[in-house]
Amino acid sequence: MAKNKSPKPGEVDVPTGKLLDELRVPPGAVDLSAYDTRATTGFSGSKDEGKVALEQLGDEVSDWQERLFAEGRKGGQRRILLVLQGMDTSGKGGVIRHGAGLMDPQGLRITSFKAPTPAEKRRGFLWRIRQALPGPGIVGIFDRSHYEDVLIARVRNLVAPPVWNRRYDQINEFEAEVTAAGVTVVKCFLHISREEQKARLLARLDDPTKHWKYNPGDVDERQLWPAYAEAYQAALERCNTADAPWYVIPSDRKWYRNWAVTTLLLETLKGLDPQWPPPDFDVEAEKARLEAT
Amino acid sequence: MAKNKSPKPGEVDVPTGKLLDELRVPPGAVDLSAYDTRATTGFSGSKDEGKVALEQLGDEVSDWQERLFAEGRKGGQRRILLVLQGMDTSGKGGVIRHGAGLMDPQGLRITSFKAPTPAEKRRGFLWRIRQALPGPGIVGIFDRSHYEDVLIARVRNLVAPPVWNRRYDQINEFEAEVTAAGVTVVKCFLHISREEQKARLLARLDDPTKHWKYNPGDVDERQLWPAYAEAYQAALERCNTADAPWYVIPSDRKWYRNWAVTTLLLETLKGLDPQWPPPDFDVEAEKARLEAT
Repeated sequence: MAKNKSPKPGEVDVPTGKLLDELRVPPGAVDLSAYDTRATTGFSGSKDEGKVALEQLGDEVSDWQERLFAEGRKGGQRRILLVLQGMDTSGKGGVIRHGAGLMDPQGLRITSFKAPTPAEKRRGFLWRIRQALPGPGIVGIFDRSHYEDVLIARVRNLVAPPVWNRRYDQINEFEAEVTAAGVTVVKCFLHISREEQKARLLARLDDPTKHWKYNPGDVDERQLWPAYAEAYQAALERCNTADAPWYVIPSDRKWYRNWAVTTLLLETLKGLDPQWPPPDFDVEAEKARLEAT
Repeated sequence: MAKNKSPKPGEVDVPTGKLLDELRVPPGAVDLSAYDTRATTGFSGSKDEGKVALEQLGDEVSDWQERLFAEGRKGGQRRILLVLQGMDTSGKGGVIRHGAGLMDPQGLRITSFKAPTPAEKRRGFLWRIRQALPGPGIVGIFDRSHYEDVLIARVRNLVAPPVWNRRYDQINEFEAEVTAAGVTVVKCFLHISREEQKARLLARLDDPTKHWKYNPGDVDERQLWPAYAEAYQAALERCNTADAPWYVIPSDRKWYRNWAVTTLLLETLKGLDPQWPPPDFDVEAEKARLEAT
């Protein structure tokens, strides 16, 4: 009855779905200033309705997540990798807390990438990324990622231009490889305006329960906003492959951002359409054996 | 204003709280048959009320969790380790899904221990446990643990009696060591009756969406119920230290089990009383710097 859709490597398709299609970055040149950071693409309700809509995704997204998890426990190789990128305060942590937080934590693997350690630097920039890839059936989430190696590394001249310049192709090869191994890659750029960032940083300074999140270095990075915008545009242009496309999430409205990314996850899970694995034992025989105990 | 309670190693006390006190196993001999698996200690409401009460813990437990996380980001060493043990179907996964699922997944580290690999076996039974300990500020959860090395290892004669017999002291030393390093250890035995296990295994066999969770080996283990009960009693007697006490969670009622373990986590967090870290920068100077951008 249950068709076993456990795929072979290379069979994973780019996810499709209504919101995925709407938020996907078209191939070609990217002009981030043309994207409205306050848009609520695909959602027509109010903020309060958006919060309710997010909560209502919970059961459905965790049901599909469990199906994928079950498939992975029975030999399936498929898994999802959600890559979250965005300027400071764009809400990578908020998406994880409020969106991924709706899922079963047993089926999540969350990795937050900080500045690489000396040991990591010696290994090549993709080494630590490979270590953090989700296993079969798991939804992996990267809070920052290998894209930092063409973002801060480029803006801050952490490596010479020929080095970061080569990385776009290296990233594309890497993402093609992991896609072929069963990973569906969903890359989200959480897009906020410069004004919104200022408001959020001020809010952190005004709230003693948020001081721990504030880092004076954030203001230094903010002063490089145009350079970061340029670096993001380059990443969204040069690493926007059919295997692993980019999505721009309008993120000035936190409730929309959380709803949108969670909806992308749900559409991706539904697109994979994992089925409950058939029994690998004789159900009636097991019932009899159990009854005898 | 905010007192900084960031502790030194060794300062962590055994957690106290109303339910913690009620469910803690008293020192001395343990007779599991004296514990009612259908009890709802500390909760007087109905099943539906229990489910609502669990949901209502969400905001409070995730607020305290964030305080602990913040402390950990600013140099604090404290963290929590929840150890979940119990017979098959006792609900270790259910507690994680419904209880820990109320928390922010960024502050969780969940490890599910299966049979050790040959490489793990060569390293000594505590090696892989150490690798999985939560970092500062994190709530770690073990779905099974080093206790398997005095449970299945003892019941199934996986090692010679003098080997497993030595492990109780080794576990006590290990837990004293991690407690001194800032880990508050909360060990929960999810206690179900033999009849309830049978009902749950049958339910898995009757539901195609649960077949993937069923393992014919579960019936084999079930046939060794008395030996497992004896091994659990030994673990609860011999490893019930002041540093790392055991709690018996009546678990025939799933809703109660989820509420009880989550309440133990909440009481533990409140007992640690983590405070929002004070700023390590000049707030007014940062506001001025930010305003200028």
